Amino acid sequence: MKSLATVQRSLGDPSLTYPLLPPLTRGCPQTGTDELAQPLEVDYDYDAVPATLFDQEPGPDLARWAPLLPPLLAPTLGEGGTPLIEYDGVYIKDESRNPTWSHKDRLNRVTVSAALAAGAPGVVVASSGNHGASAAAYAARAGLPAVVIASAESPPAVQTFVRSYGATVLTVAAEQRWPLLRDIVDNLGYHPVSNQTVTHTGHPYGPEGYKTVAYEVFLQLGRVPAAVFAPSGYAELLFGVWKGFVELRRLGLAGSVPAVFACEPAAGGPTTRAVATGAPAAIVETGESAAYSILCEVGGRRGVLAVEGSGGAGVLVDDVALSRAQRELAGAGLWYEISGVAGYAGYRALGREFDGPVVCIATSSGFKDLGVGQTPVTVSDNPTWRDVQAEVERR
Amino acid sequence: MKSLATVQRSLGDPSLTYPLLPPLTRGCPQTGTDELAQPLEVDYDYDAVPATLFDQEPGPDLARWAPLLPPLLAPTLGEGGTPLIEYDGVYIKDESRNPTWSHKDRLNRVTVSAALAAGAPGVVVASSGNHGASAAAYAARAGLPAVVIASAESPPAVQTFVRSYGATVLTVAAEQRWPLLRDIVDNLGYHPVSNQTVTHTGHPYGPEGYKTVAYEVFLQLGRVPAAVFAPSGYAELLFGVWKGFVELRRLGLAGSVPAVFACEPAAGGPTTRAVATGAPAAIVETGESAAYSILCEVGGRRGVLAVEGSGGAGVLVDDVALSRAQRELAGAGLWYEISGVAGYAGYRALGREFDGPVVCIATSSGFKDLGVGQTPVTVSDNPTWRDVQAEVERR
Repeated sequence: MKSLATVQRSLGDPSLTYPLLPPLTRGCPQTGTDELAQPLEVDYDYDAVPATLFDQEPGPDLARWAPLLPPLLAPTLGEGGTPLIEYDGVYIKDESRNPTWSHKDRLNRVTVSAALAAGAPGVVVASSGNHGASAAAYAARAGLPAVVIASAESPPAVQTFVRSYGATVLTVAAEQRWPLLRDIVDNLGYHPVSNQTVTHTGHPYGPEGYKTVAYEVFLQLGRVPAAVFAPSGYAELLFGVWKGFVELRRLGLAGSVPAVFACEPAAGGPTTRAVATGAPAAIVETGESAAYSILCEVGGRRGVLAVEGSGGAGVLVDDVALSRAQRELAGAGLWYEISGVAGYAGYRALGREFDGPVVCIATSSGFKDLGVGQTPVTVSDNPTWRDVQAEVERR
Repeated sequence: MKSLATVQRSLGDPSLTYPLLPPLTRGCPQTGTDELAQPLEVDYDYDAVPATLFDQEPGPDLARWAPLLPPLLAPTLGEGGTPLIEYDGVYIKDESRNPTWSHKDRLNRVTVSAALAAGAPGVVVASSGNHGASAAAYAARAGLPAVVIASAESPPAVQTFVRSYGATVLTVAAEQRWPLLRDIVDNLGYHPVSNQTVTHTGHPYGPEGYKTVAYEVFLQLGRVPAAVFAPSGYAELLFGVWKGFVELRRLGLAGSVPAVFACEPAAGGPTTRAVATGAPAAIVETGESAAYSILCEVGGRRGVLAVEGSGGAGVLVDDVALSRAQRELAGAGLWYEISGVAGYAGYRALGREFDGPVVCIATSSGFKDLGVGQTPVTVSDNPTWRDVQAEVERR
């Protein structure tokens, strides 16, 4: 199937369009300002979408959605097709079941494809973990060099993870990461698959990968959910999922769009701040949180548009609530990174009733947390079943 | 769909059958001896299998194969339905895409279901990692207490993993693990989901979960492969996959059965030893290997039957070959634990040509290796694009 992508369209002024190439990775050149960057999105010839596109199973490999994605030049690693698991009255969309065990693989199949389409000699990404590893994996699979500008604060297991795919990994002080990214883009011509702008725009193609979450959920439930709760840092995932449901409505397949909720660490929360203050986007100061993967100072337009356009909200969750949610889900056989449970924690924190199914996106496996590898282990000397029984009863 | 399982059948003498319950977790009581335990397998009313069973997509949740499995009383975590990824002329079956990121989830859905069917007050497992965590996850999901007898030698990240699901975890010296397992089974009535016998029998239902790998591969390829290479410790996975293909032939869906290859660390290798010496099963001394997940002293009948019944072989791979295979696959975007690449390493080591597709099963994510979290990280001070270029060129 062929891509039906037509143009890049500005979120700052939807009447402004640009050719698909080059991807405008520094936002809309006409509507962005020094204080507010305006992302772009990809538009399609929706009238030409085959009527049978949504008759298929929601399995792996985004190529099954090719008409509604930019051209997928990068080979698949089998991303997507993740299970939807019912738990205690809600549905958990288990994104830890992707090729590098996070939702980021959906984005990187698309953005590394963009790098190939743009003829770039490599890709570059600034990331504390999941995004960098995923970009490195897709670049490796596509035969493109990758440079990952990593964070010294990432957990030890994540440091190994990010370096496993053969990318060039440079660890620099936090404030040097984005200047170095721009330096590499400007001088080496590497294609950036993470943000470069004053408020977040990221890659214009990125959320296109995420919208496949909506397609899958729609097929898995056999209907549109009432609400979707997603862990949110820059809120690209949330925007993508919202856009996917908007497309389903536009295609006449669905009658409604779920309310979408940006679930952010209370120590940050730029989308919640922007929505609360009526700002187009916000930049916040961040405090301490174990949820390093979604602890962002810089927000963007996308999350605000998704929340406001859907009648959703921003939800702040503190580390106590996140830890509780993490333990609860792990106690049901689902072990996620603490950032990964923010959607579920946000749903519990909000305490609202919905008239229809609720989906909480769980983004990433538990192996990526700060405490991984730090668990104290004591060797028991010749325990008997009585010791075991006492231990079981003590719990 | 209802289970069509009928009886447990002895692999020591296939004319001997036993009721489905209780699961004979200490092997066949009539044909086992003090030197050689005989596993059992599950038999089915194959004539009653619905003709449409294999018309479906190979998605997650083993319940889709319910007629050909023992009753699935334990809730799903969305196991199975893993992608088959083409790489350099072979197919990688990516079992890191399961709920606890290894193939073991297929087994534990079935064995924890057996514990529920048997009315056991809990499950107990002796494991160095993946099996223990998976059993804990499925027990947690099913609301059953779990006791994991862990190994002090497991990597730090795996220690966190095994403890994440709320099980009672006891770490004991290696030689105390199996006596304690028996002690807990005998005195607490916990259902054992790992081995208790002199040569390996494991749980009689376990390989039934693994055979769904064969069903999926058959549907994903649209045919039977010529060969399957699997990482092998006790070779339960290999036996299960072989049995799945034998069933497809029996059901008239396939005309052949692939040759199956038990790929073992050269520092161990009980299945290779047994096949080479014509023994029914072997016990070997083990040396040092980073492939701790499949470094087994004790082999069993199952692997030998699968290799000999299919015209396959045992293949020994040393740590150098395993490391090379691991780096090669990670360099293509697929990061597995070193034990997990033994199938691919074995295929490369064997160097044989096959008249049809070759499938290498990759069992588990790279997060579970000994070196995870040990990667040295140096922070670069104010690097420029020139430093990055030099670094890229140096690689």
